[in-house]
Amino acid sequence: MNRKRKLSHKINYIAYVASSIDGRIAKSNQSGTDWTSKEDWNFFQKSISKFDAVVVGHNTYKVAENWLKKRRTIVFTSRYSFLKSIDSVTFLNPAHVNFLNFIHEANFKKIAILGGPKVYTFFLENKMLDELFVTIEPYIFINGVPMFSGDRFHKYRFILQSVKKLNKRSTILLHYKNGN
Amino acid sequence: MNRKRKLSHKINYIAYVASSIDGRIAKSNQSGTDWTSKEDWNFFQKSISKFDAVVVGHNTYKVAENWLKKRRTIVFTSRYSFLKSIDSVTFLNPAHVNFLNFIHEANFKKIAILGGPKVYTFFLENKMLDELFVTIEPYIFINGVPMFSGDRFHKYRFILQSVKKLNKRSTILLHYKNGN
Repeated sequence: MNRKRKLSHKINYIAYVASSIDGRIAKSNQSGTDWTSKEDWNFFQKSISKFDAVVVGHNTYKVAENWLKKRRTIVFTSRYSFLKSIDSVTFLNPAHVNFLNFIHEANFKKIAILGGPKVYTFFLENKMLDELFVTIEPYIFINGVPMFSGDRFHKYRFILQSVKKLNKRSTILLHYKNGN
Repeated sequence: MNRKRKLSHKINYIAYVASSIDGRIAKSNQSGTDWTSKEDWNFFQKSISKFDAVVVGHNTYKVAENWLKKRRTIVFTSRYSFLKSIDSVTFLNPAHVNFLNFIHEANFKKIAILGGPKVYTFFLENKMLDELFVTIEPYIFINGVPMFSGDRFHKYRFILQSVKKLNKRSTILLHYKNGN
């Protein structure tokens, strides 16, 4: 009974994405987001401080390791079959470890999802994406890592909450709620 | 001298894109844009009426043939080595036919670029993209045709002119000028 109550607490999943106009989030899986604006970074840093934990994929972790090590970070990876924690960073393979159980045991209530594409897609496909903040920086990359990636086409509906100009250099911030 | 003057007239190239939040413009090369809003279609129809001609790729032409046949349409295709016109539709391979010469001979001054990704990319890479209208419909597709596509990563800079909510169902319209 206690267990049941524990598992039913509401968890809020919010994804943060910085994208080019054409929906690319990086040059390659190994490259960072040095092309984003100072204003987006400030918005992102301020937002992240309110979360219990952040979730990233292994590539994103490698790119931002120093920053993520200082936070309560969950890294999705296929390298380990079981859960492995080093200080504040927990590595787990969601195909082998029950992510929801882990989150509930840890009593996390507010989770920020920071990418890459496979991680964003995991949460969306598993109905664990409540809100989405997309910063659109004023570039077209033509090539690079897409925002989401998976084998199948879907039509997930979102509901726009706000549009905001983050600076005078053409950066905008879109805030959506999941409409599915 | 006459020829020179003729070739120097200013041509305006404006691209129109309807995209998901994650930068996808269609499920596949053979599918249309039946997922876009009525308000986007109205905006697009009204805009297009002011152009001398529209440019599309062969896939886009096949998807919207009935609509495009009624317009002055240029179809980029690798099927023909030489220029081929059928009524108001001209097929040409820009690798073999000098597109700029053709546009100048026809005295076109305002050209709308309607995609797909290879066509958008052709104009951007050849410095023939002055403005960009991107309608973002409130969906995430995860998979599908990307807005631009090419072998190499670039960082083309754009300058935001306006952001507009097209309806109350979360559709927004971004207008950019080329900043390169």
